[in-house]
Amino acid sequence: MYEIRDPIHRTIPFSEREKRVIDHPYVQRLRQVRQLGLAYTVYPGATHDRFSHALGAMHVAGRMWARMVETSGELLRAHFSDDDLGYFRQILRFSGLMHDLGHPPFSHVSEKFMPPFNALDLPKAWLVTPKQDRQASHEDYSVLLIAALAADDTAPLSHDEAQDVASLVHHGVMPSAAWQKRFGENEGSKGIHRLLRSLISGELDCDRMDYLLRDAYYTGVAYGTHDMEHLIANLGVVDQPDRGLVRTIDSTAVRAFEDFLLSRYHMFLQVYLHKTTLTFDHFLEQALAEGEFELKIPGDAKGYARLRDSTMIERLFTAAEDERNVWSRRLVNRQPGKLIYKSTNSKQDEKELMAEVIDALKAAGVPYFEVTSHQYLSKSLPSVEGEGGPSSMLVRRKMFGRYVFEPIERFSALLTKYNESIDMTHLFVLPEHYAMAKSVIEKFAR
Amino acid sequence: MYEIRDPIHRTIPFSEREKRVIDHPYVQRLRQVRQLGLAYTVYPGATHDRFSHALGAMHVAGRMWARMVETSGELLRAHFSDDDLGYFRQILRFSGLMHDLGHPPFSHVSEKFMPPFNALDLPKAWLVTPKQDRQASHEDYSVLLIAALAADDTAPLSHDEAQDVASLVHHGVMPSAAWQKRFGENEGSKGIHRLLRSLISGELDCDRMDYLLRDAYYTGVAYGTHDMEHLIANLGVVDQPDRGLVRTIDSTAVRAFEDFLLSRYHMFLQVYLHKTTLTFDHFLEQALAEGEFELKIPGDAKGYARLRDSTMIERLFTAAEDERNVWSRRLVNRQPGKLIYKSTNSKQDEKELMAEVIDALKAAGVPYFEVTSHQYLSKSLPSVEGEGGPSSMLVRRKMFGRYVFEPIERFSALLTKYNESIDMTHLFVLPEHYAMAKSVIEKFAR
Amino acid sequence: MYEIRDPIHRTIPFSEREKRVIDHPYVQRLRQVRQLGLAYTVYPGATHDRFSHALGAMHVAGRMWARMVETSGELLRAHFSDDDLGYFRQILRFSGLMHDLGHPPFSHVSEKFMPPFNALDLPKAWLVTPKQDRQASHEDYSVLLIAALAADDTAPLSHDEAQDVASLVHHGVMPSAAWQKRFGENEGSKGIHRLLRSLISGELDCDRMDYLLRDAYYTGVAYGTHDMEHLIANLGVVDQPDRGLVRTIDSTAVRAFEDFLLSRYHMFLQVYLHKTTLTFDHFLEQALAEGEFELKIPGDAKGYARLRDSTMIERLFTAAEDERNVWSRRLVNRQPGKLIYKSTNSKQDEKELMAEVIDALKAAGVPYFEVTSHQYLSKSLPSVEGEGGPSSMLVRRKMFGRYVFEPIERFSALLTKYNESIDMTHLFVLPEHYAMAKSVIEKFAR
Amino acid sequence: MYEIRDPIHRTIPFSEREKRVIDHPYVQRLRQVRQLGLAYTVYPGATHDRFSHALGAMHVAGRMWARMVETSGELLRAHFSDDDLGYFRQILRFSGLMHDLGHPPFSHVSEKFMPPFNALDLPKAWLVTPKQDRQASHEDYSVLLIAALAADDTAPLSHDEAQDVASLVHHGVMPSAAWQKRFGENEGSKGIHRLLRSLISGELDCDRMDYLLRDAYYTGVAYGTHDMEHLIANLGVVDQPDRGLVRTIDSTAVRAFEDFLLSRYHMFLQVYLHKTTLTFDHFLEQALAEGEFELKIPGDAKGYARLRDSTMIERLFTAAEDERNVWSRRLVNRQPGKLIYKSTNSKQDEKELMAEVIDALKAAGVPYFEVTSHQYLSKSLPSVEGEGGPSSMLVRRKMFGRYVFEPIERFSALLTKYNESIDMTHLFVLPEHYAMAKSVIEKFAR
Repeated sequence: MYEIRDPIHRTIPFSEREKRVIDHPYVQRLRQVRQLGLAYTVYPGATHDRFSHALGAMHVAGRMWARMVETSGELLRAHFSDDDLGYFRQILRFSGLMHDLGHPPFSHVSEKFMPPFNALDLPKAWLVTPKQDRQASHEDYSVLLIAALAADDTAPLSHDEAQDVASLVHHGVMPSAAWQKRFGENEGSKGIHRLLRSLISGELDCDRMDYLLRDAYYTGVAYGTHDMEHLIANLGVVDQPDRGLVRTIDSTAVRAFEDFLLSRYHMFLQVYLHKTTLTFDHFLEQALAEGEFELKIPGDAKGYARLRDSTMIERLFTAAEDERNVWSRRLVNRQPGKLIYKSTNSKQDEKELMAEVIDALKAAGVPYFEVTSHQYLSKSLPSVEGEGGPSSMLVRRKMFGRYVFEPIERFSALLTKYNESIDMTHLFVLPEHYAMAKSVIEKFAR
Repeated sequence: MYEIRDPIHRTIPFSEREKRVIDHPYVQRLRQVRQLGLAYTVYPGATHDRFSHALGAMHVAGRMWARMVETSGELLRAHFSDDDLGYFRQILRFSGLMHDLGHPPFSHVSEKFMPPFNALDLPKAWLVTPKQDRQASHEDYSVLLIAALAADDTAPLSHDEAQDVASLVHHGVMPSAAWQKRFGENEGSKGIHRLLRSLISGELDCDRMDYLLRDAYYTGVAYGTHDMEHLIANLGVVDQPDRGLVRTIDSTAVRAFEDFLLSRYHMFLQVYLHKTTLTFDHFLEQALAEGEFELKIPGDAKGYARLRDSTMIERLFTAAEDERNVWSRRLVNRQPGKLIYKSTNSKQDEKELMAEVIDALKAAGVPYFEVTSHQYLSKSLPSVEGEGGPSSMLVRRKMFGRYVFEPIERFSALLTKYNESIDMTHLFVLPEHYAMAKSVIEKFAR
Repeated sequence: MYEIRDPIHRTIPFSEREKRVIDHPYVQRLRQVRQLGLAYTVYPGATHDRFSHALGAMHVAGRMWARMVETSGELLRAHFSDDDLGYFRQILRFSGLMHDLGHPPFSHVSEKFMPPFNALDLPKAWLVTPKQDRQASHEDYSVLLIAALAADDTAPLSHDEAQDVASLVHHGVMPSAAWQKRFGENEGSKGIHRLLRSLISGELDCDRMDYLLRDAYYTGVAYGTHDMEHLIANLGVVDQPDRGLVRTIDSTAVRAFEDFLLSRYHMFLQVYLHKTTLTFDHFLEQALAEGEFELKIPGDAKGYARLRDSTMIERLFTAAEDERNVWSRRLVNRQPGKLIYKSTNSKQDEKELMAEVIDALKAAGVPYFEVTSHQYLSKSLPSVEGEGGPSSMLVRRKMFGRYVFEPIERFSALLTKYNESIDMTHLFVLPEHYAMAKSVIEKFAR
Repeated sequence: MYEIRDPIHRTIPFSEREKRVIDHPYVQRLRQVRQLGLAYTVYPGATHDRFSHALGAMHVAGRMWARMVETSGELLRAHFSDDDLGYFRQILRFSGLMHDLGHPPFSHVSEKFMPPFNALDLPKAWLVTPKQDRQASHEDYSVLLIAALAADDTAPLSHDEAQDVASLVHHGVMPSAAWQKRFGENEGSKGIHRLLRSLISGELDCDRMDYLLRDAYYTGVAYGTHDMEHLIANLGVVDQPDRGLVRTIDSTAVRAFEDFLLSRYHMFLQVYLHKTTLTFDHFLEQALAEGEFELKIPGDAKGYARLRDSTMIERLFTAAEDERNVWSRRLVNRQPGKLIYKSTNSKQDEKELMAEVIDALKAAGVPYFEVTSHQYLSKSLPSVEGEGGPSSMLVRRKMFGRYVFEPIERFSALLTKYNESIDMTHLFVLPEHYAMAKSVIEKFAR
């Protein structure tokens, strides 16, 4: 057994075999990619990298599963052997570790410069839809790197395991043939794949639990904290007649769950969508779009793994030495845009005011730029009818001496409320245009 | 300057004069009264007393005011002298210190055995309504003890100061004649009394800020934590044409305020209304109601100050040695009632089910007892039209280069949502009746 | 399984059987006895009771053992069955829970009023020396209550278990005959009893680990914190040719261990021997010695269990209403003595100065009082030759590819340094004599 | 006023003028240099940069000073005007902010490749000894960058201020002529420069206080924590007949100070001198020494400011793609050396054993490498006779009604003990030589 110190979980233990995967260059690369991109320009403490988060997610995934086996061991053992349960545990931990493998440096910006999906060297046999007319995403690259890592002799990960891991990480990847054979026809294991996936990417998953605590810790913002111990302690599994195995959370932990949701909401508003980070992201995007420096994202694993934060940082600072590269210079010299107005797109009056302000700026010839952010607060709602819906977690409560199971969204008014997307538009002008803008917008001031 | 160590605020400094008030037996008595009554029977860590809370509230009141003078000094200095501002500070700190002076031991229960309001030896001249046909409350006793403390030669508190302190602590007490003369006719000081009172007893006051942090710390429940530093840092004052001076909070702190509200909500559900505490409170009340031991609450300050937790604890344990005192015995021997059903009174279906369950128990001859809890989550809503309404705190935000001030309830959807009363009924049976009850309620299980 | 919330360990789980012991009145009594006696008069947060500490010690004892079984399972399983290991675990947890059962209210003071050892209703067969000409101690009362609890039909603790528990808690109690038979003749189990006892009462035991963290948490003093997680994680067991089974700690945790020792040292100087607490302890002792109120400590379990903090608090406040009871009044009215000088008895110059100061006070006829404190920082040194010596914990480190085991005192210079007793004398005068004293001591001022 | 969020100090406020210094590229460069170099390869959380530490040190310097003005205002105001006190505050904050400006990326290694002192473009008039035959250090570069920053039109720092700041940061820099004129001839201000410098670089300075808390926070190691609040709260100033103004700490904080020292000691042993970081440092040094990639350290400010971590990271990874660059590859592929033996140089038996082991490895032809570390735990001892000696902080305690001041080293046995240098040698072999080495060293195993 090995152990690594971590400020969030104190100590993260891992096995010899896991060590070999962790030490692989594709995982180690995450040390060179910051978790929050340019957020450190606003929250100087936020220098943490994706590697710590990957270890943390691995750790949390394992703990969630261990707890479910503890609380619902009888039910699980009725359908699965100890080997099966051990396999799930290992796959979950690997999925936690590798779920973000495909993040490029400064993900929010770089993703916009990714090649087409079809240009990626993906294992086609794993995919539900092998050809897709769309731009690649970092999730696709995670699959690419997981497959490449397994293909590497040095990494102790079989092809089947890699596919099963990928299937928990990416909704477009099917479980391996071996999985299908082992669990596919067993009526008792119905729902198990969806259940495991919900621990990696669901309403209450290892990804969110770790990153909220971690981002809060490193930014120094208290909002991200939540009672992870209590949430994990109250997990379980139930077998539902129609749907098979479904994850449960005890009713005593519903308040902790609401707190968890609110943490996420507040982190979005205060940190992830902070106005200054948004303008710097915009500058970086402009610098790339206008060719101030180059970012070529290769379609093969080896080439992709060469992309590090330092690669872009060096190019950016070099570009900024040339006076013509105005966007790079703004970013390097820390000259953020000035926020003029911020509208939530769902609020009609704000949308209308935004349009009026923009018209006024246009009429006065004041240059401006907009940043539109679109974030799903919940991973579930968009596919309510599908398997990832919120009902993928049921609340267990005792009533009149018996346990009843209810969809969490019926139990928590907050969930319904925050289960929306956050659509927001920030309107900025460059600092040198602010004086002009000011005279225009003053008339909107009440 | 003196200093005292405190786990919540680390160090609480106070002056020589304040020390003399703090050392007065009426304040020291709070060391002998636990903050959360019988909650320690469920949360063993919750042994903290009202004395620490009093010091903490004093400290927070001073900090809030200091910050407001810092951020809005220009405005305040336009209307008040440095002496005035210093007086407000001192009155606020004393109010924080003494706001809970009148709590009897095991307040929730004992208050039900208080004498009529008119039996109290109160300074009638202070009161808006000197005679009232109702039972006295702990707030009335706070006024009684503040007045008596000021009347004591050893305490360095003038009669006028004491009245002004009482007027911040109790809504039925008017400020002193000296206050009226000093600030009453000055147009610029309009609203100052309401503003100061909102720091002692308002939506975001020294009382709540301290007790939420303290109760969370001592129970070990994470929910009560909130970002007090951020909340205080964003306080200010605005002068509104119609209403005079009003407290403000910057828009960047609205999320922290929502978190604060939610903390309170969760503390209610998880701690203050915990089912086991509720049954023990009920047992204590029954023991008193049936005369298993005596609780006589005197109407004079000196007599009242003899009431300590230990007084009741000793009587309770002595009573419990006699087999006939069944309620005392249940409490001492830790035999809580069994919860049968819990209904939120605002939910019609829950209320109806409750009625059905009760009917069934009655029909089957199963003894039961109900505990109905009624808590205002917000101190403001009931008097929206009045001065204590939520609009007593305005959100300040910059829009188009100018500050605008908006009522916080329009700004925060959460506030509206949680600004309700919590009405709840818990239905219990005694342990020895549970077997009977079980067969009755099983038919309600879905 | 049951769970209880605790601010130090978050959640403390326990079994149905343990619940029945925890709910026994002799354990519940600890809720009515504060852990730090009168320290709350100086550190107002320090209201925690011995019950929380008992739960915490139970929890830590179980965790230490679980870790040792984890790291040294092979060695332990070679000598013991799973039943044996489970028995040790249960006995350890019960010992943690009940080790302080015999503490009277305000222990430091009350112990001085205990009856002779021979007056106690102890199970003589358990004792190494059944008759002893000395005053009883709270440890003796712990044995008395453990035996009485086991004799009670309602508590699920056998007579043999109770004796084994008592043998871990009290050095004068032998393990049961059943224990002797089961483990006494087995060469492989040599040292096991000493090893288990070191977890309850040794250099690094469940008692100290819990109370340092707990006292630090409740007083708000940072010094008591230490890295319990790291300390537990590095525990193990080794089989030494001559001594049998001995506890080990890995060399990487020696720094954490030094930090733990220093924490203890600092807590003594800052909290446990705080000058104000010492004078109040002195006042309480005087009040009892001069019969201002009564404290009769019975020799039987049932009578002893009636002693609560509230018993003494009530008597104290009642006594203080009578003007003649000066000591009670000083305590209730918070008039601590004034510290004149503090000497460490091992420092010759300080001892000499103390003698001179006392002579001068005497000569001038100024009344004074001394409080002499005597505390062993380490439980081991006094019996270096015996089994409890510091070598009862060996440091394990890897050297040249092999593990070597060394006595911890050779490894840590700090341990040697702090492994002394703290002998201290505080010299006080009553406040009303301070003016007189001042003119006398001024000449000692440099 | 501006504010920045920081996980250690929660909120760090700064003025408009300070903002302009903070935003200068020479200060912003610290964002691109990690505080602990390669330590993140062992403690993945340790990604924090020197920028946060610079802000933190600025903040702590200001707080220490503010407290000293609070506790010793009368004394200070007798000698200095409010303008003087304000100037000291500003100079202290700037010194905290800029004290580490000259750190190159991966300081421990890069410093060895620095040019000669005389090649630096330093303001000669500032220096006590303008020409020196030695290699430049990062402290020299701090002076270089402070001077260059002041020379830059955009930064609001006068030449004199810059020199005064440099004189607090670097022992070889004199205060400005203006300073000499203003304070040099005033008898009452004797010692003030030494006193201010002790807050930047002394036994208890803003640098150490911030970095210990910060490094502990980011590594997740508890040892670095100490009670900064208590330490600051107990600072003061005394005027000594012979030495002028000297900093004091109250005797009640001596325990906290010991805890602070021990924290530092433990951080060295556990973090700063961790064996794995040492081997990676060694590999980086070898890669540079053997020219696997280039590091040229310019002697001018502008050129120097182009050095970032990313510069070296990019070169390192590029180098590692070539099979011949073995040191770069070991580092990138995470193949640390294997520790054979670690000796403390002050322990004769360890030194001798080390020599024997090395002889044995040599005899057997096993390649090895040594890393010798030399760290002063205390900045004071080496120059006991000089002004920086430990007596630069006096302990204030009340004795017989009067304050006495004693050198802290006489007060604290711990200080004496830990006031030594840590000299340590680690002996490693490369992983591929470990099998050979093992057979050699086995004979040393006891």
